Amino acid sequence: MTDKVHFDRIAIIGAGLIGSSVARAVMRAGAAGTLVVSDRDEAVLSEAEKLGFAHEFTVNAREAAQDADLVVIAVPVGAMASVGVTIAPVLKAGAIVTDVGSVKEGVFKALEPLLPGNVHLIPGHPVAGTEQSGPSAGFASLFDGRWCIITPPQGVDEGALEKLTKLWEAMGSKVEIMTAQHHDLVLAITSHVPHLIAYNIVGTASDLEEVTRSEVIKYSAGGFRDFTRIAASDPTMWRDVFLNNKDAVLEMLGRFSEDLTALQRAIRWGDGDALFDLFTRTRDIRRRIIDAGQDEEAADFGRHHEE
Amino acid sequence: MTDKVHFDRIAIIGAGLIGSSVARAVMRAGAAGTLVVSDRDEAVLSEAEKLGFAHEFTVNAREAAQDADLVVIAVPVGAMASVGVTIAPVLKAGAIVTDVGSVKEGVFKALEPLLPGNVHLIPGHPVAGTEQSGPSAGFASLFDGRWCIITPPQGVDEGALEKLTKLWEAMGSKVEIMTAQHHDLVLAITSHVPHLIAYNIVGTASDLEEVTRSEVIKYSAGGFRDFTRIAASDPTMWRDVFLNNKDAVLEMLGRFSEDLTALQRAIRWGDGDALFDLFTRTRDIRRRIIDAGQDEEAADFGRHHEE
Repeated sequence: MTDKVHFDRIAIIGAGLIGSSVARAVMRAGAAGTLVVSDRDEAVLSEAEKLGFAHEFTVNAREAAQDADLVVIAVPVGAMASVGVTIAPVLKAGAIVTDVGSVKEGVFKALEPLLPGNVHLIPGHPVAGTEQSGPSAGFASLFDGRWCIITPPQGVDEGALEKLTKLWEAMGSKVEIMTAQHHDLVLAITSHVPHLIAYNIVGTASDLEEVTRSEVIKYSAGGFRDFTRIAASDPTMWRDVFLNNKDAVLEMLGRFSEDLTALQRAIRWGDGDALFDLFTRTRDIRRRIIDAGQDEEAADFGRHHEE
Repeated sequence: MTDKVHFDRIAIIGAGLIGSSVARAVMRAGAAGTLVVSDRDEAVLSEAEKLGFAHEFTVNAREAAQDADLVVIAVPVGAMASVGVTIAPVLKAGAIVTDVGSVKEGVFKALEPLLPGNVHLIPGHPVAGTEQSGPSAGFASLFDGRWCIITPPQGVDEGALEKLTKLWEAMGSKVEIMTAQHHDLVLAITSHVPHLIAYNIVGTASDLEEVTRSEVIKYSAGGFRDFTRIAASDPTMWRDVFLNNKDAVLEMLGRFSEDLTALQRAIRWGDGDALFDLFTRTRDIRRRIIDAGQDEEAADFGRHHEE
């Protein structure tokens, strides 16, 4: 096997669910001589400091990035540029700058013009998370067995790419390389549109006149409650995702709506075969996700049941 | 408190997820002198018999219903009428006939003309389940803490209604009484439309040309995999739900699509405030579902994570 990946100094900007999980996973892997975590929100930083998942903590992103060999920006996509402006002046020549955002083309376009030419900007996206937010919600095993997508620009420094890849592997991830554009299309269907329709149905349900909100809550075990979990995800992060991956989301949403209209028509005209065919096809995808280790087989997500 | 509920003979027609769970819960509650389970599928019946969750097993629904004080029909909504025809000739005067279907007005209309006038037809619907099917998937605690909606017809026999209510309570449920029509509207938004859009997005995702099915599966942890769980539910059961609750489903689907179009417009025009407002409102509904004991607080549905 290869040598253990090691950076003298890693800075993580943003101590939320993902940033704090990266910090814990870096510590678990022993991949940093010094790990410094920064968050501009003093309450968040002080919570992070109490949890103690890094060597150093600072509210000052510039101070954190100074002398870092690797900077991981873990803030909402819309805040990336502001972090870029802050840290650019102190970045070390040869440093790697990466991120964990759910949109990749927009992040690259926002950061690339801001950073000095002698650093390696290599965006990334660990496809993992929960509906919870903040430093207490993170945990070291969040990335275990999940995919991290790295979207290197053309002409990337191969050594820097390899080092970043090895770090994600050391944190438990499997790594895939693709273009930012393709990433954004893939995630639009596997993540962005699912979140949008979950938010949407929860909104629809809470605006009804004939069905009270209390009824929606009482009878949510029929399926609705699963959507509310997703629709409890961080509003700022998700607002930024939709604003920054507009084209791919609108494209996938168009297809979703077209298919839904066809289903609606099948219901209106009593076409049971069309419904049955789709409902049978979809079971196969579930099977393959479980076989691929991307979800648990346990019924009902393994929600606790006593026999 | 009241006397323990007891029936001399309970027959359950259908040994799938729900029927087999009712059987286990009846046994756990000690609510039947004799519990007989019937399923017309010999393989299912033999699996049920091996699991041993009743006193008697038979492929013959008529034989099961003979002399029963309570008959619980636990088959897909579209198969209710056929069961009604089969059991009607042997039903005992004063027997209670109920069901567990997800649609209530259609079930009543299908069964009512078939049954003799001297039995009490009182439809019901335990709002509980998992995505799995068959007798092995059931368990005794499925209904614990969940709501069971009973939809008695006008002029129902109060004694029969009370006895059925007490049985569901003895099986762990909380019971709510409402009209069949209102039930169908409530469930359209809390269960039927959520299932439809889950099936739909899984269908959309598997039909894409630009994103491979293998990519959809690999990166499903971004949200999509939660939809695949719901979209793995029994195809026959769900086809029948949509065919038999057409009006309410089309009404709720119309609202969902209208709201989704507004969200689509907000994305197209970069209206971040509209997105942020909705994404904040939806968190509150999640909170209230957890407070009401209808879902677990644990992140990610409590999927197993090592720290």
